[in-house]
Amino acid sequence: MDLNADLGEGFGRWQLGDDDALLDVVTSANVACGFHAGDAVTMRRVCERAAERGVAIGAQVGYRDLPGFGRRFIDMEPYALTQDVLYQLGALQAFAVVAGSRVRYLKPHGALYNAIVTHEEQAAAVVQAVLEHDPALPVLGLPGSAWLRQADSAGLRVVREAFADRAYTPQGALVSRRLPGAVLHDVEEIARRCLAMATGQPVADVLGGELHLSPESICVHGDTPDAVRIARRVRAELEQAGVPLTSFT
Amino acid sequence: MDLNADLGEGFGRWQLGDDDALLDVVTSANVACGFHAGDAVTMRRVCERAAERGVAIGAQVGYRDLPGFGRRFIDMEPYALTQDVLYQLGALQAFAVVAGSRVRYLKPHGALYNAIVTHEEQAAAVVQAVLEHDPALPVLGLPGSAWLRQADSAGLRVVREAFADRAYTPQGALVSRRLPGAVLHDVEEIARRCLAMATGQPVADVLGGELHLSPESICVHGDTPDAVRIARRVRAELEQAGVPLTSFT
Amino acid sequence: MDLNADLGEGFGRWQLGDDDALLDVVTSANVACGFHAGDAVTMRRVCERAAERGVAIGAQVGYRDLPGFGRRFIDMEPYALTQDVLYQLGALQAFAVVAGSRVRYLKPHGALYNAIVTHEEQAAAVVQAVLEHDPALPVLGLPGSAWLRQADSAGLRVVREAFADRAYTPQGALVSRRLPGAVLHDVEEIARRCLAMATGQPVADVLGGELHLSPESICVHGDTPDAVRIARRVRAELEQAGVPLTSFT
Amino acid sequence: MDLNADLGEGFGRWQLGDDDALLDVVTSANVACGFHAGDAVTMRRVCERAAERGVAIGAQVGYRDLPGFGRRFIDMEPYALTQDVLYQLGALQAFAVVAGSRVRYLKPHGALYNAIVTHEEQAAAVVQAVLEHDPALPVLGLPGSAWLRQADSAGLRVVREAFADRAYTPQGALVSRRLPGAVLHDVEEIARRCLAMATGQPVADVLGGELHLSPESICVHGDTPDAVRIARRVRAELEQAGVPLTSFT
Repeated sequence: MDLNADLGEGFGRWQLGDDDALLDVVTSANVACGFHAGDAVTMRRVCERAAERGVAIGAQVGYRDLPGFGRRFIDMEPYALTQDVLYQLGALQAFAVVAGSRVRYLKPHGALYNAIVTHEEQAAAVVQAVLEHDPALPVLGLPGSAWLRQADSAGLRVVREAFADRAYTPQGALVSRRLPGAVLHDVEEIARRCLAMATGQPVADVLGGELHLSPESICVHGDTPDAVRIARRVRAELEQAGVPLTSFT
Repeated sequence: MDLNADLGEGFGRWQLGDDDALLDVVTSANVACGFHAGDAVTMRRVCERAAERGVAIGAQVGYRDLPGFGRRFIDMEPYALTQDVLYQLGALQAFAVVAGSRVRYLKPHGALYNAIVTHEEQAAAVVQAVLEHDPALPVLGLPGSAWLRQADSAGLRVVREAFADRAYTPQGALVSRRLPGAVLHDVEEIARRCLAMATGQPVADVLGGELHLSPESICVHGDTPDAVRIARRVRAELEQAGVPLTSFT
Repeated sequence: MDLNADLGEGFGRWQLGDDDALLDVVTSANVACGFHAGDAVTMRRVCERAAERGVAIGAQVGYRDLPGFGRRFIDMEPYALTQDVLYQLGALQAFAVVAGSRVRYLKPHGALYNAIVTHEEQAAAVVQAVLEHDPALPVLGLPGSAWLRQADSAGLRVVREAFADRAYTPQGALVSRRLPGAVLHDVEEIARRCLAMATGQPVADVLGGELHLSPESICVHGDTPDAVRIARRVRAELEQAGVPLTSFT
Repeated sequence: MDLNADLGEGFGRWQLGDDDALLDVVTSANVACGFHAGDAVTMRRVCERAAERGVAIGAQVGYRDLPGFGRRFIDMEPYALTQDVLYQLGALQAFAVVAGSRVRYLKPHGALYNAIVTHEEQAAAVVQAVLEHDPALPVLGLPGSAWLRQADSAGLRVVREAFADRAYTPQGALVSRRLPGAVLHDVEEIARRCLAMATGQPVADVLGGELHLSPESICVHGDTPDAVRIARRVRAELEQAGVPLTSFT
């Protein structure tokens, strides 16, 4: 099983999350590329530390929106979106290579992640960027999304992820953050659910039914106050159960 | 002889210069990388057209200063400057590769170009970025600058450039733009001077003395109203004299 | 009749449109406030020249999106939008006051203009900003828009505008730019239509029917190649017919 | 005695310092205006809370440099600097007025603060902005700086500040942060020094001599881990000694 988290999401003077602590937990680091967060110094640092620890470096690409942290949908032209993703991929690649590694996968961030669950044109634009940059690059995303469906059709390697701390509907969709119970906070419950996901067991959906998620990667969030504690607990739970932790790449 | 010009210096809705016309004249395109000018769509377009025409793609790296067009010195830490240059190099590389080419050289822009004529720490920072990114990458600059001296010491290939439309002191330095006569406007005079430079003949310095410049590349500016006309005239003059025009790469 | 145009839409090194020429034609200047275009030097300059000519200064507020020139819808929180509009209003006010004038009206730009034709929450957010900043500030917009309806309900002075060079549906809506014939190019036709609008006569809608627009202001665009010529012709047509040209303020 | 601190220095998703806690301690809030830090939502919030508590709102103006947090000198044209300061003043004024208050003073931030200790042209540019915006606006700064000297000559009200946690040379200049002992960390020592400053007593300079500072305002920093604790202790010390705490405005 792979554990991924968003890293390098500070900007200049501003810090966000505890990158070093999370790099000791995860096997894949979604590194912000400067459009919604991240700057060159931060990217350099995270790439070096990820490479030292054998953590896979992934491009966490987003809309060009520092004030909104990439969390606001932007209705941009698909062609321009393709170029913005290529730009971010290239920038991160420079730091990954200097660190003795390379970009191993791509995962969209925030509003872009959410948009391309259903927005076919923007999904196609991100797929296009990956095809042009490196058709061997795996892509991470939500099972059932337009994004993964299109990526799969285009011949990209698709990696399905589940969220450690999010509730799911019976259909396997994420419960909207605007609804109560969307985000789980009980560390033990989160750890148990992750173990179930990792061993082919069902988890409870939001209505109490059984839901089989079969992710290749589990996302542990990076910027909540409890992020490090939850991530460590999830990793410990999986390790105790003998689940091998390794990047999907 | 190589002819280089600054290209891709628009941003979003804003155009600057006539990229297409200049790409028919120059052999090397200094492509803005998004920090002082340029955006992803523009970079894609210029890289594609440069590659189609066999024009070498160079990284025109600058300070992160869109409002100032990279023309204002920023007293930034050398380590951060190295990372900012790596970021720009990586971003441009993505577009150059998609266009079937690659980044062939680096030329600093504006205030950074001017600063590292004498600013040893910032010069070292840019050299460091090139060494880390690709130690085989040639670098363009002003003869006599700290930048080229340090690059040479570090084992980089150094390409000396002269300016088609600028006056020189007897010592071979550029006459400050604040002084009268710093910029030449007579197209025929400019063409004659470029031919002299390209054939090992002296040109007149600002005091009327003979000055031997022996550039490997001549810079024709891209954003003045007469830019295209001057560039075409220079190229025609060199071609008529049988000077082979080809990128230094 | 009032004539308005978008002005001050350059940014740093980049120019857009011919502000000085248009300031001799229009009675109201929609000045970009730095979020989608415009910078402090440009705002200062346009405010001074507008004040000298007795042209009313209006705040042309937009999404914070320089790369997209404010032409991309951003799904931002209404509360944040209110603050972004207040910020822009305040910044422009500083320059208007220094120029011996003040901000006389507000007109949303680009994607924000289009969004609040129907987006009730964002329309309410812009209305809220005006109420908080200065409830006596007139607002410009499209007749029939949620924006003007809400502004009117809130007690703001609402100014209905028509577009000199746009085709209308029989219902009085703008024909989408994606459809043929959406933008008129015949200067004489444009001038005749503006005169009709200004004198209570109908104009032809896109299907050839009669459409009565009764605008208080006519928008002549500022950033097309023909902008100045069209604007001058419209003004001349109205003046010849004896239509008094004066700001609605 | 007045206590001032830098506030509102987050940006979008990123927080910095504990604005609410500091607003209970200081009498003057230097509010970031969006160029080096701060965004519209943050400015709104800080202005409202400052106004509720009777804390004076000041414009903390800086270079336009979010990635560098305004801590890098930018060699910009004085005219452009004047306009950038006016822009920031206007933007903050909008929020101060909505909060039922107004901008009561101006204090430059970071590299601009340091630059205009000696940079006469940039100092003049900031003075010019204040003169144009509101010649009755007091300005905060370092005693002995070009900035305060020019402001005084121009007829502005000048407020001399001292730093609670900085060491001074025998001449009354700040010891460079690059030297050991430049920043004081002992809370009790800091409190004692502030009390001395506030009651006309000398403090020890870095060589152990006696130094008479006679500030009208003491700056307690906002973004260090101990900021709130130090600020509270300073306030308590002054209150216990019966020093009245009130804004200089």
